[in-house]
Amino acid sequence: MDAGEAATLRASVESLVVVHNVAKRHNVGTMARSATAFGVSEIVLVGRRDFNAFGSHGSTSHLRFRHFHSLSQARHYLKEARNCDICGVEITDGALSIADHPFRKSTAFLLGNEGTGLSAKECEICDFFVYIPQYGCGTASLNVTVAASIVLHHFGVWAGFPERSREGNKFAVAEKPVKQTRRNYCASSVESIVEERKSRKQSASIDMFEEGTSESKSTNLLEALFDDRVQRLTIGEER
Amino acid sequence: MDAGEAATLRASVESLVVVHNVAKRHNVGTMARSATAFGVSEIVLVGRRDFNAFGSHGSTSHLRFRHFHSLSQARHYLKEARNCDICGVEITDGALSIADHPFRKSTAFLLGNEGTGLSAKECEICDFFVYIPQYGCGTASLNVTVAASIVLHHFGVWAGFPERSREGNKFAVAEKPVKQTRRNYCASSVESIVEERKSRKQSASIDMFEEGTSESKSTNLLEALFDDRVQRLTIGEER
Repeated sequence: MDAGEAATLRASVESLVVVHNVAKRHNVGTMARSATAFGVSEIVLVGRRDFNAFGSHGSTSHLRFRHFHSLSQARHYLKEARNCDICGVEITDGALSIADHPFRKSTAFLLGNEGTGLSAKECEICDFFVYIPQYGCGTASLNVTVAASIVLHHFGVWAGFPERSREGNKFAVAEKPVKQTRRNYCASSVESIVEERKSRKQSASIDMFEEGTSESKSTNLLEALFDDRVQRLTIGEER
Repeated sequence: MDAGEAATLRASVESLVVVHNVAKRHNVGTMARSATAFGVSEIVLVGRRDFNAFGSHGSTSHLRFRHFHSLSQARHYLKEARNCDICGVEITDGALSIADHPFRKSTAFLLGNEGTGLSAKECEICDFFVYIPQYGCGTASLNVTVAASIVLHHFGVWAGFPERSREGNKFAVAEKPVKQTRRNYCASSVESIVEERKSRKQSASIDMFEEGTSESKSTNLLEALFDDRVQRLTIGEER
């Protein structure tokens, strides 16, 4: 592949985040803030989905969330519908340093439970692993949001995502998502809304929060959570 | 400078973190965990020093802390005693992308208050600025610990800090610091303790927590905080 082909490939790649059996105290809010900062397309929750949006500073309303009941369903979706590599973030034998940008295409990052890391079942759905080098002697691992942020930042650098415009010393925040689309995403133009509707039709067969009657309960829960208010379901449980 | 000279220079560099007027709710604990993971030599607190060590997972006991009353005192110490560049982490005109590793030597990173960024007075003591590129539309800035972690990680990659050894799927954590030295640092060998004592003598004239009667109150506070117990002075105040 020459440099031009590589640039074309990268122009179409995307990053996703997969969280398995998120616990209530798992702070998806802070994670969501980093995810939207680094251009993540979607957060995929697998298994449990009752989480804490505290710390999101409203950014959950700019993100798409999707839910699957099992890891194998999530893998099927990520491989077949999204054509993603699945990358485990874990300090394991054979894991590649994140600083080397070991990416080839769109990538979904599976984050471990901070206490125990990725389980054997979680590792099974991964195509490869990355780790973040550590140099000091005082801690065995990083906070899970910190680890996710470093990985997503590097993916954005590798992919050459265009930088967000600024307003003074801050990056510009988009208008709140347009309500009638019933989905939380970045709607900064009419074109993007049309594009979004088109992709909704195409993916209508996939298990999503917004489609399917069996998901209606969780849809309501999420809509309540993402209503741009800071939620304090549980507070301060730092992981 | 040729590659060999560059490698020699980098072998002796170090990173420091400067926090000005830390608020109680400012979570120095989570920051400390990242700081020790990325090999930071010292955390320099300027002005206020009553902070929250919640989230450190015990790593504050492996870090050295130093306190100054004013920014100009801190700058004097960092420039004269440590021969550091002072780098502001801020999205400002002329700030350099962290991904380009714009470093030359030992660097002290000054982190802004997340709400308002660095003040004019804080910017005055900086030699240059770095920023972290953002790509998405959902948030104006990153959590301050996330931003610090990304910056410190990149500095470690640039400096070529040796990677910490592992125990299974975790990085190895050192024994608790040796008590009789009355300072919190990583003491993994007799040599390092001797070296540490030598440097204490050399820097005895500098305003430090451990020296000087006027500091005794805060020394006691810090010793209590860093006694490897998770502190819950204030909880859950995510910044």
